[in-house]
Amino acid sequence: MDAAGKKIEKFQFIFILVMISCLICCEGVTSNYRRKLEATEDMPLDNDAFKLPDGYNAPQQVHITQGDDVGKAVIVTWVTPSEAGSNKVYYSTVNGTYSDYVEGSVSQYKFYNYTSGFIHHCAINNLEYNTKYYYRLGEGDSAREFWFWTPPEIGPDVPYAFGVIGDLGQTYDSQRTFQHYLEGNGQALLYVGDLSYADRYPFHDNNRWDTWGRFLEPSTAYQPWIWTAGNHELDFIPELGESEPFKPYLNRYPTPYHASNSTSPLWYSVKRASAHIIVLSSYSAFGTYSPQYKWLKGELATVDRNRTPWLIVLMHSPLYNSNEHHYMEGETMRVQFETWFTDAKVDIVFAGHVHAYERTYRISNVAYNIVNGQCTPVRNDSAPVYITVGDGGNSEGLAAEFMDPQPDYSAMREASFGHAMLEIKNRTHAYYSWHRNDDGVAVMADSLWLSNQYWSSQATSTSTFKYLSLRP
Amino acid sequence: MDAAGKKIEKFQFIFILVMISCLICCEGVTSNYRRKLEATEDMPLDNDAFKLPDGYNAPQQVHITQGDDVGKAVIVTWVTPSEAGSNKVYYSTVNGTYSDYVEGSVSQYKFYNYTSGFIHHCAINNLEYNTKYYYRLGEGDSAREFWFWTPPEIGPDVPYAFGVIGDLGQTYDSQRTFQHYLEGNGQALLYVGDLSYADRYPFHDNNRWDTWGRFLEPSTAYQPWIWTAGNHELDFIPELGESEPFKPYLNRYPTPYHASNSTSPLWYSVKRASAHIIVLSSYSAFGTYSPQYKWLKGELATVDRNRTPWLIVLMHSPLYNSNEHHYMEGETMRVQFETWFTDAKVDIVFAGHVHAYERTYRISNVAYNIVNGQCTPVRNDSAPVYITVGDGGNSEGLAAEFMDPQPDYSAMREASFGHAMLEIKNRTHAYYSWHRNDDGVAVMADSLWLSNQYWSSQATSTSTFKYLSLRP
Repeated sequence: MDAAGKKIEKFQFIFILVMISCLICCEGVTSNYRRKLEATEDMPLDNDAFKLPDGYNAPQQVHITQGDDVGKAVIVTWVTPSEAGSNKVYYSTVNGTYSDYVEGSVSQYKFYNYTSGFIHHCAINNLEYNTKYYYRLGEGDSAREFWFWTPPEIGPDVPYAFGVIGDLGQTYDSQRTFQHYLEGNGQALLYVGDLSYADRYPFHDNNRWDTWGRFLEPSTAYQPWIWTAGNHELDFIPELGESEPFKPYLNRYPTPYHASNSTSPLWYSVKRASAHIIVLSSYSAFGTYSPQYKWLKGELATVDRNRTPWLIVLMHSPLYNSNEHHYMEGETMRVQFETWFTDAKVDIVFAGHVHAYERTYRISNVAYNIVNGQCTPVRNDSAPVYITVGDGGNSEGLAAEFMDPQPDYSAMREASFGHAMLEIKNRTHAYYSWHRNDDGVAVMADSLWLSNQYWSSQATSTSTFKYLSLRP
Repeated sequence: MDAAGKKIEKFQFIFILVMISCLICCEGVTSNYRRKLEATEDMPLDNDAFKLPDGYNAPQQVHITQGDDVGKAVIVTWVTPSEAGSNKVYYSTVNGTYSDYVEGSVSQYKFYNYTSGFIHHCAINNLEYNTKYYYRLGEGDSAREFWFWTPPEIGPDVPYAFGVIGDLGQTYDSQRTFQHYLEGNGQALLYVGDLSYADRYPFHDNNRWDTWGRFLEPSTAYQPWIWTAGNHELDFIPELGESEPFKPYLNRYPTPYHASNSTSPLWYSVKRASAHIIVLSSYSAFGTYSPQYKWLKGELATVDRNRTPWLIVLMHSPLYNSNEHHYMEGETMRVQFETWFTDAKVDIVFAGHVHAYERTYRISNVAYNIVNGQCTPVRNDSAPVYITVGDGGNSEGLAAEFMDPQPDYSAMREASFGHAMLEIKNRTHAYYSWHRNDDGVAVMADSLWLSNQYWSSQATSTSTFKYLSLRP
């Protein structure tokens, strides 16, 4: 074993000790582990991660997302730089033999002094479940081939592995996070907002949206990423005449919002395997009577835990977090929706925004009525676990200052970059883990078995489940 | 004195007694006075209040609003029913002699099975302050003439009388409220949302937007109404293909949002006489980083209390109210903006939404940090008075159930229809009053002298001011 390996072992040992002491005394853990404090820079434009594909007008920035609400469709998106070119996606279950094709739409957008390439969106519908599909984009020598697996048919005990990443950006740290995710077993990715960080460049240089699209193609072309909008997607600079919020994001990253009866691509849901995943927009209206509010109310009523036991909510700004950065920014959405999440027995709320990792206990703060003084979070079996993974590794660096002391609601927090995994095993159990970036390898630094919020309360013997759900 | 007059005198006497006892013991007042509990119906289509003007294609639904941020412009809006016709506004300081004209825009909109008339918007700029202007719309025999006064030049001691109405609708009660306002001395009206209630009709019958426009013309053609959007302006019915929020409202009621550097007609500001009036949208995004959030942050920094001492905020959903109806719906905006209002020493926040009258003491609830338990409203010299006047008289009726006991933050509440007046006298004092609809006459049922929040804290001797501001 080399020196780096020994170092990793040492950290793992310390971490296990900390976790054991936590379980004994049942207090939250603030890990002192920290890979680095300084932010890394974005990778330069000529980095291999951003390499252009060979051939004239070759399709680039290929990414797919779920194309309906049940997993039998995908939307394929790609960009051609020089001309619109072919707008067809050829696809087949046999590699190299393409009998079928569908044709999509193509558009461009302008953002201040930038004009986008030709952005193609094409939905492939009526796919078979649990099937490997090959697909081809582009023409002649510039054609490119990829593949994806459709998910298994929806069912309560269908296992499935989701990755979870937020606030990724395009630094060397971003690359580590991404590489670690690629090395794992994720079948689809839940992305909790803040994508390219192009808005950190002068005039929000949208070429950095293009580099980001190329950077992630090794995953996004092969498995669906489920998108959530963050504040870095707002691209709101009225002083430059750009006052249409989310313009680059909405042009580049389509979502299947119609399928879940949403009226906006910024909030929607997908069902996949045994999970019902609800995506919310922290930066759209969600006050009572607003479209997002009305949609979520109706959406929660459609959830069928007999079909999709796992109810997951994604948003950008966390409802619970104890980092000094962005502290309490999610309060507006918390006071609006927390009761609904608790009533619906949501399993997990994943968020990003804060550039550190944090996981809460199952807690809620829903008794407050302005005059009763009951405004402190308390343990609540029905409440979700709130997990913040805004630690993708972008150029703004880590948010290293946590509130001191650690609040009672916080179970585990650490200012390191990394990504999370949610491995659903069946209707009752899922294995959750967080993987810190550590000297070039991913190190599992937080993990727990989650019992399903609906099925654990249905079980006649609930003691084990409750233990798991309360003290994960 | 007739019987009705005696009855009014009796109520006034009782009310004064109640107010005196309130001032002595400093507890909030819940008035038991209630004109009626049953809701009245909308006036029928053939009611005189909705009468069409004479002549082919005659301009109707004439209304004006401030057209810039300093009061030297107006926007004139009118509807021609049969064809676009003339789009010109002739105007002059001499009645009947029209040398000048401006030309505006004209548009129509569709809403499900309804097609609007031809809606004209025309801005008249570069007007003189404190001047009576006559204006003429339409052609030939169908031409119609109106007039308005421009406000005095902006200055710290310029007196001005604003009316305040919310949730008006178009019932017989609405008519009483409107008539009482017409009989008063209001120079401009602050409207706190929920206009026509057309959305209570099948398919949101937009003909009821037209009747509402005609109903109010006796005031709106002659003085600016400053508009705030409410939930009844959302007109969001995706099941009928209408998923663009605020479509009828935005087509009909323009605001001078560009002049205050806003990017949306739903939030903006105007300065008028000695007041800086900020209009917010309860049903748009206002989370951190959202356009409305960024705009308000910048806007508050522009407020110059030496020029406009009176800082007034309008919104639809109240931040403080103790009615059981819509209770705590304004919490999302409260947690987002209350600290800003307190820091900025806002004088008054006017809201509607709740169909009853309520006024708070100067209180705030800004110490909360999730873990400190400090979430109870407390008296705060720097805080605004929060006033709810959702009592215009619409067909939904009164919200008669108040929280019991009356919370400490509530100074006065009553479930009756009515309207309010804010009469600014100079930089230090304004007289505020609420006028209950009572047997056909307006009865002043709540009133107080307000000391200006900025100038009272600037004064070397603050005792009188403080008394007024804390115990209004």
